[in-house]
Amino acid sequence: MAQDEFAIIERYFSSIGKPAGNIALGIGDDAAVVDVPPTEQLVVSMDTLVGGVHFPLDTSPADIGHKALAVNLSDLAAMAATPAWFLLSLTLPQNDADWLHQFASGLSQTAETFKLQLIGGDTCQGGLSISIQIAGLVPAARYITRQHASPGDLILVTGELGNAALGLAHKQGRIDLPQNLQAKCLLALNRPQPRLELVPFLREHASAAIDISDGLQGDLAHLLKASGCGAKLEQLALPVNDWIGQQGCYDYALAAGDDYEICCCVAATRRNEIDSWNRGHPDCRLSIVGEITRSGYFLHDGERLIDLDNAQGYQHFD
Amino acid sequence: MAQDEFAIIERYFSSIGKPAGNIALGIGDDAAVVDVPPTEQLVVSMDTLVGGVHFPLDTSPADIGHKALAVNLSDLAAMAATPAWFLLSLTLPQNDADWLHQFASGLSQTAETFKLQLIGGDTCQGGLSISIQIAGLVPAARYITRQHASPGDLILVTGELGNAALGLAHKQGRIDLPQNLQAKCLLALNRPQPRLELVPFLREHASAAIDISDGLQGDLAHLLKASGCGAKLEQLALPVNDWIGQQGCYDYALAAGDDYEICCCVAATRRNEIDSWNRGHPDCRLSIVGEITRSGYFLHDGERLIDLDNAQGYQHFD
Repeated sequence: MAQDEFAIIERYFSSIGKPAGNIALGIGDDAAVVDVPPTEQLVVSMDTLVGGVHFPLDTSPADIGHKALAVNLSDLAAMAATPAWFLLSLTLPQNDADWLHQFASGLSQTAETFKLQLIGGDTCQGGLSISIQIAGLVPAARYITRQHASPGDLILVTGELGNAALGLAHKQGRIDLPQNLQAKCLLALNRPQPRLELVPFLREHASAAIDISDGLQGDLAHLLKASGCGAKLEQLALPVNDWIGQQGCYDYALAAGDDYEICCCVAATRRNEIDSWNRGHPDCRLSIVGEITRSGYFLHDGERLIDLDNAQGYQHFD
Repeated sequence: MAQDEFAIIERYFSSIGKPAGNIALGIGDDAAVVDVPPTEQLVVSMDTLVGGVHFPLDTSPADIGHKALAVNLSDLAAMAATPAWFLLSLTLPQNDADWLHQFASGLSQTAETFKLQLIGGDTCQGGLSISIQIAGLVPAARYITRQHASPGDLILVTGELGNAALGLAHKQGRIDLPQNLQAKCLLALNRPQPRLELVPFLREHASAAIDISDGLQGDLAHLLKASGCGAKLEQLALPVNDWIGQQGCYDYALAAGDDYEICCCVAATRRNEIDSWNRGHPDCRLSIVGEITRSGYFLHDGERLIDLDNAQGYQHFD
């Protein structure tokens, strides 16, 4: 089956996502043309997943398609932006119609769920790698950054931490997860859910936010650096599954990465708003895991204070 | 020398290009935030260069940095857009400080020349590959596409065609170029110059345009398909160097790719404007290489009419 680059684009990628009102010219020309409403700002990010580095090479093509978009959507969620469109650059070893069909279907499903359209990109031959550049919109000056956390703010995280890393460790035979956790942890690994439902809460209440892609410990350190603050985390308050709690292996939740939950900071006066959020959103619960301080970075493990200042999250280069 | 991803970004990529007025938040957060003036539309494109596919692996890092940005700038030129900002996703086998320094310097020089700023992206470990997502601005509805060529329009191309392909063939030992052409053709291969100076001419006079990255023959075919027209090309009118003319190997100019010149269509009534452009722009001359017709796609080689309808440019997949 001889298909060239243009046929690939036309066949698999020319109609991913619902046509949106702000796309003046979509996929198929030298570039796409888009309108940005004058009351909005554009929020842009770009993340690459490399086969064998960011996902095991035997991951299903549909899961890869989903995950490549989900990790980018997670960056928009952390900025309190609403998804608008994306571009895809797909590098793959050979032109495999079956692989492409499944990849495009996973990508397409997630694009429709989060209401954004594929408007351009590139296909190349090479080692499997997927780069997505995503764009979202936010009402002028309503975006949230890592920069404005204040001492006294509560530190919150969505969902459960560590499940994706447990899923990977189980898949690689490094641990043997109990039966009842396997499906959940593999789902967290292969089908991370970007927390876009949190955007209204962030715009209303958050002083700062970051998505947890490299582990809470390392990612919160970036937020602290940007805000010029310190923090104290409570290990026993971390939202983890029973197995992590029983085994005491909190490193999966603190340092392993691939969670794509949101960590945000909220003034302590807003506990009622947090409770109210949690009553309305059982699938995207916010847990209070610590407090912003003036300086220093510590983990209280229930007995001791551990200095995290020189510790790091997942590093892409050794 | 142990440098992690964040240190790489900070050291080499945090200050590429001049800060522009429309960047509300640049590199270093989960995403960047930009303002699009209400009278402008945003033009976005994304191209990836894979080491060993799009450039020989022994290409200098500075040339790779330049070329990765230049091929994207060429897409903006073809749309008649003015460069605004870009995102970079860099995948490389190891963290090599010397390579990164040279790559960033080539990239930075070109970013400054064309006045655009690096505002975000990603670094990963893997086979050498560079994805750039570029954004430009155009006054509302003034962009040019592949879609509106009309029968009778002149077909123009900038510069000389085939030099980059000759440079590659010479480098690979497939041909032996005369001394006086070697430097010029290697420069065309490694330092393609995006034709952004043509943007005002395109906005004023062009009915359609495309950049020639895969060879004139294949790229013009895309323009014809989008416009629902045919064309007749004059081989002897193609702007080529003396060697191609003497050897009669016009395939380098027609089908070899990597030229990054602009092909555009202009009403035949505008010959004076073309002459006037050429007097003012000796380094970006426009050559009339053929005419848009109602249907069919032919090359007149001086004697015969060759049917190009089933021919193709460079294909990324075999």
